[in-house]
Amino acid sequence: MAKELTSRAENYSQWYNDLVIKADLAENSAVRGSMVIKPYGYAIWEKMQAALDQMFKDTGHVNAYFPLFIPKSFFAKEAAHVEGFAKECDVVIHYRLKNDGKGGVMVDESAKLEEELIVRPTSETIIWDTYKKWIQSYRDLPLLINQWANVVRWEMRTRLFLRTAEFLWQEGHTAHATKDEAVKEAELILDVYADFAEKWMGVPVLKGVKSPGERFAGAVETYCIEALMQDGKALQAGTSHFLGQNFAKAFDVKYVTKENQLEYVWATSWGVSTRLVGALIMSHSDDNGLVLPPKLAPIQVVIVPIYKKPEQLDEISIEVNKIVNDLKAKGISVKFDDRDTHKPGFKFAEWELKGVPVRLAIGPRDLENGTVEVARRDTLEKETLAIKDIAHKIENLLENIQNNIFQKALSFRDDNTFNVDSWNEFKDRIEKGGFVWAHWDGTDETEEKIKDETKATIRLIPTNGKLKEGKCIFTGKPSRQRVVFAKAY
Amino acid sequence: MAKELTSRAENYSQWYNDLVIKADLAENSAVRGSMVIKPYGYAIWEKMQAALDQMFKDTGHVNAYFPLFIPKSFFAKEAAHVEGFAKECDVVIHYRLKNDGKGGVMVDESAKLEEELIVRPTSETIIWDTYKKWIQSYRDLPLLINQWANVVRWEMRTRLFLRTAEFLWQEGHTAHATKDEAVKEAELILDVYADFAEKWMGVPVLKGVKSPGERFAGAVETYCIEALMQDGKALQAGTSHFLGQNFAKAFDVKYVTKENQLEYVWATSWGVSTRLVGALIMSHSDDNGLVLPPKLAPIQVVIVPIYKKPEQLDEISIEVNKIVNDLKAKGISVKFDDRDTHKPGFKFAEWELKGVPVRLAIGPRDLENGTVEVARRDTLEKETLAIKDIAHKIENLLENIQNNIFQKALSFRDDNTFNVDSWNEFKDRIEKGGFVWAHWDGTDETEEKIKDETKATIRLIPTNGKLKEGKCIFTGKPSRQRVVFAKAY
Repeated sequence: MAKELTSRAENYSQWYNDLVIKADLAENSAVRGSMVIKPYGYAIWEKMQAALDQMFKDTGHVNAYFPLFIPKSFFAKEAAHVEGFAKECDVVIHYRLKNDGKGGVMVDESAKLEEELIVRPTSETIIWDTYKKWIQSYRDLPLLINQWANVVRWEMRTRLFLRTAEFLWQEGHTAHATKDEAVKEAELILDVYADFAEKWMGVPVLKGVKSPGERFAGAVETYCIEALMQDGKALQAGTSHFLGQNFAKAFDVKYVTKENQLEYVWATSWGVSTRLVGALIMSHSDDNGLVLPPKLAPIQVVIVPIYKKPEQLDEISIEVNKIVNDLKAKGISVKFDDRDTHKPGFKFAEWELKGVPVRLAIGPRDLENGTVEVARRDTLEKETLAIKDIAHKIENLLENIQNNIFQKALSFRDDNTFNVDSWNEFKDRIEKGGFVWAHWDGTDETEEKIKDETKATIRLIPTNGKLKEGKCIFTGKPSRQRVVFAKAY
Repeated sequence: MAKELTSRAENYSQWYNDLVIKADLAENSAVRGSMVIKPYGYAIWEKMQAALDQMFKDTGHVNAYFPLFIPKSFFAKEAAHVEGFAKECDVVIHYRLKNDGKGGVMVDESAKLEEELIVRPTSETIIWDTYKKWIQSYRDLPLLINQWANVVRWEMRTRLFLRTAEFLWQEGHTAHATKDEAVKEAELILDVYADFAEKWMGVPVLKGVKSPGERFAGAVETYCIEALMQDGKALQAGTSHFLGQNFAKAFDVKYVTKENQLEYVWATSWGVSTRLVGALIMSHSDDNGLVLPPKLAPIQVVIVPIYKKPEQLDEISIEVNKIVNDLKAKGISVKFDDRDTHKPGFKFAEWELKGVPVRLAIGPRDLENGTVEVARRDTLEKETLAIKDIAHKIENLLENIQNNIFQKALSFRDDNTFNVDSWNEFKDRIEKGGFVWAHWDGTDETEEKIKDETKATIRLIPTNGKLKEGKCIFTGKPSRQRVVFAKAY
């Protein structure tokens, strides 16, 4: 077929770009760095949103919406925050156009804003300015709010889904009476993100905290989940920040405690974005196209009729409509591809490219035998099954595929995770790809030097394992535990 | 209670603002003209979104996402469009901040964009630039795409939900092979909007088309639904535009027909916004607060325990938990307000203010008698019902309330709709409020003069009634049919 992909082995990066374009997920727009998310890609994002939104609500969070624009002065209030984001901001200065007298339009210089507005790169500042009005007493806490929104950060080099100037995300912003409660919230959300990655996306993740050098601008601690892509590079899939009292102090948000004392509020913020669609693609897909976990697939089952004469299609359709109804009754999304403009081979390749988990093919001989051909996308295996009770069999198969996709990604990660204790081996391993567990002396300086020499960054410092001392891979100085290094997206 | 509202009779406009603030729906932000949608207000919007999204999908539409920023030059391509929107645009010029040396930040003048970007006021231009790439043949048509997004239009005078600089909306953008098909699409969506307004919001609407002077910038025909608010002013609740080939020509989007001819594509666009929340509030609410139709109420039933001693609350809670489970099993959202910090009277007033359709109160005597007090928000009536089978009774009651709210609004509209044939009566009627059906000679000039003298605009020209000729209310010239005038939001 015309839509052949570059193979992963040939050029992984090109394979990814080809796949995003050819599977109709997204494309570059006329605006530098901004993508158009096409309907098929957006349908995956919608499924992600629905699942995450329910998980947030189940843990007591509610949604709200805050302004796109942030007054410039707000940014200066939290020193580390402005330092981290100033260079990535889009600034709105004027608010009117006028005719340029040549059939075009130009900016009306006379219509200037009193204060420049920033297009939000993240919303801590505007939200904490608002929380100041909402929080007076311990009775107003905790405040557990999430927002689904677009944000903009200027990027020099962009890649569809993985790094774009504008992207879609959710950002949670919570306020708490105590430090302990805020830390627990940040950890709870990290667990929600990890659950979502593993149970919905089928992507195994490591959990831990960032080194000080990789922390979010304004955070006291950044928790993260990290996944390993098929090319051996790491991808940060979600972060949850314990912000201490930094934003409360910057925006003067205090509350009256039960004991009638005035205290600063404790905060968290956390987010995942359309980047997850990129992570999903890179984790499971193959040289034939997308491989989607059934729980996030816009179409879970496609049915292709095999026929020569129109009468045959009519007969097949009767049988197929029964199957469609049975599948729908089980909440399974199904498409009957009865286009007469394309041959079965074309359709097979197209739905393979688009990652539909299960494909059924049914022809006149199947009708005679009471059978149907069932192909699964993850293993590309086919089998012929009795049509009786087929909806139930497919329901089980989808569950099986969901698990298999996760197990396969987990095996890949296990095969590409290494404990390394010598600097030469470290350099070699990092070059080849994978998660490298190595000792580090805990200093920014060493972290920087390792990055300069190998391009590897500390992806995370594990928080759930036993500490075991050793010597820094680079300096030989004492280390409390291994941390996880990798080259990353 | 402290949260008392201004009455509608005293000052309708103040009543509306009070209500939006005091019911925790929204508030003004630090950014001029932009609002913060608070969790309770956002929950109503989420319910609207879910219902509309399903209706769009049931009629064959899919969602996608296009960039927030639009290159300035795109705006100049469709002449009427730029004329209509140029003065409302926010323009992004720079993309970086730097330290100002005084602890603040300033715009880095050296980091200027090559072409200024507009923050989208609506997305026809960026979308039609994209469709040019997606449409080659009749096989690519129709293209039925919707987007949920934020847009920004500069406004001098803003009001929460009704008119804000930034607002949330959906915008559908479709492409068709024939004029007939595009017109049918614009009409189909108008029906979807009208259905949603009447069946979900409980707001009766008139359907029709706008006069040329009130058309969307770039449209050939603008279809609209208009609702009547309690103060007798009209509110445009949704518009659906037949765009002809205007945008296809501006962006050079042609397709190859079945007959192998090159033709320009036909288009529609259509949208409803967070303005609908304002329409909902103003249609049904009263001097005690919000009145929400059950289908859009974030909380449909609230249960308030009446007790003096903690043991009584324990006993009541056992009974209430059973009711809660029964209601949830029916898909009814319910809140058990067992806060011990507030008295029942306070809770009653609070949930009245927030428009919860049904309130149950249950005390020790109710437990003895096997009864519960049921109060409905729309009529403020109370009755004591046997607790047996209460979930089923409430299910029916919610349906009853949904219908009653609509009927009440319909009666109000009927009572405030007038056929008027003399200019003096017209001026008088317009001043008093309501929909005024009157003859118009069809000219922009007359429309303008009527507006100048009375502030009334033509809300719509009905399309589904019989034509009946008459004489223009203002000029006495011949008229083909009555049109609907009103003062409007």
